[in-house]
Amino acid sequence: MPEASGGDRPPAGGGQVGREPGTRRADRVPFERVAVVGLGLIGGSIALAVRRAWPSVVVTGVDSGEVIDRARSLGAVDAASTDLVIVSEASLVVLAAPVRQNIGRLLELPRLVRPSAVVTDVGSTKRAIVEAARHVGGEVTFVGGHPLAGATASGIEHASADLFSGRRWLFTPEADSPPDALERLRVFVSMMGAEPCWMDAAEHDHLMAYLSHLPQLAASALMQVAGDEVGAAGLEFAGPGLTDTTRLAGSPSGIWADICLTNADYLQAALGRLADVLDSLRARVGDRDALEGILGPARAWREQLIASARRLDRAPEGGKR
Amino acid sequence: MPEASGGDRPPAGGGQVGREPGTRRADRVPFERVAVVGLGLIGGSIALAVRRAWPSVVVTGVDSGEVIDRARSLGAVDAASTDLVIVSEASLVVLAAPVRQNIGRLLELPRLVRPSAVVTDVGSTKRAIVEAARHVGGEVTFVGGHPLAGATASGIEHASADLFSGRRWLFTPEADSPPDALERLRVFVSMMGAEPCWMDAAEHDHLMAYLSHLPQLAASALMQVAGDEVGAAGLEFAGPGLTDTTRLAGSPSGIWADICLTNADYLQAALGRLADVLDSLRARVGDRDALEGILGPARAWREQLIASARRLDRAPEGGKR
Repeated sequence: MPEASGGDRPPAGGGQVGREPGTRRADRVPFERVAVVGLGLIGGSIALAVRRAWPSVVVTGVDSGEVIDRARSLGAVDAASTDLVIVSEASLVVLAAPVRQNIGRLLELPRLVRPSAVVTDVGSTKRAIVEAARHVGGEVTFVGGHPLAGATASGIEHASADLFSGRRWLFTPEADSPPDALERLRVFVSMMGAEPCWMDAAEHDHLMAYLSHLPQLAASALMQVAGDEVGAAGLEFAGPGLTDTTRLAGSPSGIWADICLTNADYLQAALGRLADVLDSLRARVGDRDALEGILGPARAWREQLIASARRLDRAPEGGKR
Repeated sequence: MPEASGGDRPPAGGGQVGREPGTRRADRVPFERVAVVGLGLIGGSIALAVRRAWPSVVVTGVDSGEVIDRARSLGAVDAASTDLVIVSEASLVVLAAPVRQNIGRLLELPRLVRPSAVVTDVGSTKRAIVEAARHVGGEVTFVGGHPLAGATASGIEHASADLFSGRRWLFTPEADSPPDALERLRVFVSMMGAEPCWMDAAEHDHLMAYLSHLPQLAASALMQVAGDEVGAAGLEFAGPGLTDTTRLAGSPSGIWADICLTNADYLQAALGRLADVLDSLRARVGDRDALEGILGPARAWREQLIASARRLDRAPEGGKR
């Protein structure tokens, strides 16, 4: 199953990605009680997806009072609290706040969770939280996770049980991750329509630096330069090209600061590479052959990217709904 | 009408942008014979839009034999030729090939077109062709044009009579442009659903360097860096963020080389600005406050951009179909 594996190392024990018929059974409940810490777009969507997949599962949530009210009115949670103590009965804890808040919460969990509980997160960087989990040690069974899903608008009011359908869900297990925990996580995300994949935390962060974090910063930098140069009156003449290219610049800056801070080394290298290509474009903008030497290969990579996206659309593991 | 004017100078004579009720009449035919030179996405869409707006108008086209066959099978033209001589009876000639081909065609027109004919183009840069028109002199009545419309896919097979609906159509008249020609062009693009705007050619090229050409090159550079670093296997893990941010990297590189070559000065400045912001992000990627100092203002510009796009969507001059 090379298309579903992000690295050389297969997951330990029972965690392999299965596409065989019959591995998915709607009545197989991997976790009886799920606690979601952070009820934003991703956390809220997980809560809604769990409710739909397994109506018997108890879903609890942790967030601010205002967000909890919205989660309750959407029917996303059975119980919720502003206090992390509510996770104490959970068999699965999902940390779904910004990266550095997740790390802070993880460090509080040893005195709170049941010894049999599995803990995962949905953050966009993995080395920092995996390292924190090593410090926590054997008291918490942690497996880093990252669903490759999102939407333009944030907040639980935009959450959807379908958000993960046809999307990859990356996990970064360690050598000592319990096979049973990996298998239950596999079933968990597969039932939400996602395709579980397994890779090393450093490999994850390197990939995401180029596939996600650099595009984010490039979109913000481009929006900044264009806005500063032409002003609000000039932006009236923008077409769909600028609008699409800068979509990510609308992302919440707080979340992205966390991501950058926990992936700074890879991201600095990536930013340097992009600045270098722009400099070489600047030097060649009056030379047709040199220009086509950059634009042509970029177009070929773009075709590759679109082909990948189409393949994934055609073959999600968990079945689209 | 400040929202429709790109500069201080109003168009000469009758070319003003009108929103008054009753200025648009379907039976008012500004040009009896329209020749479109270059039947790609834009040229083909103009041909189709003219046919729908004024069924009595004769539409002719110039392109390669293969494209002409497709144009005929789509019913886009009454007559077509690979030879520019077919424009000789036209009252309007629209140059709709890549920028430098348009300039070459323009230089051939004096010996071909009727003295009363109006010539315009749809290229993405305006200084170079306006300068070429000055060399041609009084033998041809040329007014530079640029519809802010497009699509991911090129070619007449993706052309649509609706392509210009709700989009701005920029014109760059000169001090000696005949008011009657400007008024007829205004009626012409308004009937296609576009909103005509008037600005100086240099102002146009400066705006487009930041709103269109820089996004194009940034998208290509980003795609190049990401593809080279992670390879085809890594691109499998890309999400919609990279896909949207690099959409423009799929554009035909030949067209874009022409655009860069005829807007090199503004574009070099713009590329330098973007590389500078990326360098400053690289220096600050580990500093939350400094990062938010870049991401926050970029987000505010993005909100401004979206607000502009919404305003335009709500109030197209020519009426959406």
